[in-house]
Amino acid sequence: MREAFHDQLDQMFRDLAGICESVETAVRLATEALLSGDPAIAESVISADDDIDRARERVEDSAFLLLTLQQPVASDLRTVVAALRMVSELERMGDLSVHVAKIARLRVPNLAVPEPVRPIIERMAAVAEDMVHRVSSIITERDIEDALALAHADEEMDQLRRASFAELLSSDWEHGVEAAVDIALLGRYYERIADHAVSVANRVVFVVTGENPRAVGA
Amino acid sequence: MREAFHDQLDQMFRDLAGICESVETAVRLATEALLSGDPAIAESVISADDDIDRARERVEDSAFLLLTLQQPVASDLRTVVAALRMVSELERMGDLSVHVAKIARLRVPNLAVPEPVRPIIERMAAVAEDMVHRVSSIITERDIEDALALAHADEEMDQLRRASFAELLSSDWEHGVEAAVDIALLGRYYERIADHAVSVANRVVFVVTGENPRAVGA
Repeated sequence: MREAFHDQLDQMFRDLAGICESVETAVRLATEALLSGDPAIAESVISADDDIDRARERVEDSAFLLLTLQQPVASDLRTVVAALRMVSELERMGDLSVHVAKIARLRVPNLAVPEPVRPIIERMAAVAEDMVHRVSSIITERDIEDALALAHADEEMDQLRRASFAELLSSDWEHGVEAAVDIALLGRYYERIADHAVSVANRVVFVVTGENPRAVGA
Repeated sequence: MREAFHDQLDQMFRDLAGICESVETAVRLATEALLSGDPAIAESVISADDDIDRARERVEDSAFLLLTLQQPVASDLRTVVAALRMVSELERMGDLSVHVAKIARLRVPNLAVPEPVRPIIERMAAVAEDMVHRVSSIITERDIEDALALAHADEEMDQLRRASFAELLSSDWEHGVEAAVDIALLGRYYERIADHAVSVANRVVFVVTGENPRAVGA
């Protein structure tokens, strides 16, 4: 019984890692749509989000089945509940990628991101994508060390966000209000993707150590 | 045993309703700080958020205790897991109120919201606050009818958000990029508070009926 339980739990974590890979693709393609202005790529991100939603439902169903049939206690119980939370956050990261893709689509045939802030947005997107990529392997390998390191990538995101505001609000800004609003919202979306990545990584730390990251020295 | 379980579950829902009332206060005061530019009110929202975080931890602890000691199955299990999710969303609504308060604080001694969009922001805030208020009683009374009606308040929020963009992007806008960015982000924060309110209400529907709102005709 216990062995079957742990097999099912492992399968659930593989499913979570699989969803995380889909989210990574969504972040990458949403950014590509944003920087290229290609509406077909934007559409592909928007329509692929259904698959992420369905994958989330499957993880939720198997979590409930596990809870009902196996009645786990203590750390096993906390692991299943953590998985339920992780899958909600991963789904939300998919939604945020859709928001990025929708800004790209809204501005076709133009680009939402004007030249002067392009490097900052590219870097934000790269940081977010890298964080999501690392979360997949953190889930698969239960890599606590990298999970704890992930919080520092989040700091770079905060700096990038401040840098983007400095650009928008400088007297040199000549791209108008619409572009500024797009950049502010894009910054918010990438920042939230990063926040959720850190949060999912922290839940892996909790699952493995039984303690929240702050208590184990993050 | 079952009776004790249901007493504890009732207590948990009373705690959730209490957190929801704290969130309602946070939304109200954050808006007051925003529209008055009073930094003391903004600070009070920011510092009160710790109480919401601690209240969330208490609900989480009692949910785990219930799961461990009572080993609920079927609908009881789903109710406890739903409570865990509701408390996460309520905490997030508190965080979003803090974001509103921080924009207010950042612009002191000025006001973040210029005159022409003041009515839209006031209305957004009123819709959000009303939704949070209704969620408290939806939780306490298990009021399915109002929970299903809440989705329509969310539609008004979408309309207000579009109206705010129309103002910012009109050729008459003479308040610059900074104010436009603030308004776009404020709109996003109030919209997210509304989204979470609908989501919490939907979870109450699920707890009572065992079905997700779309299936029962929302």
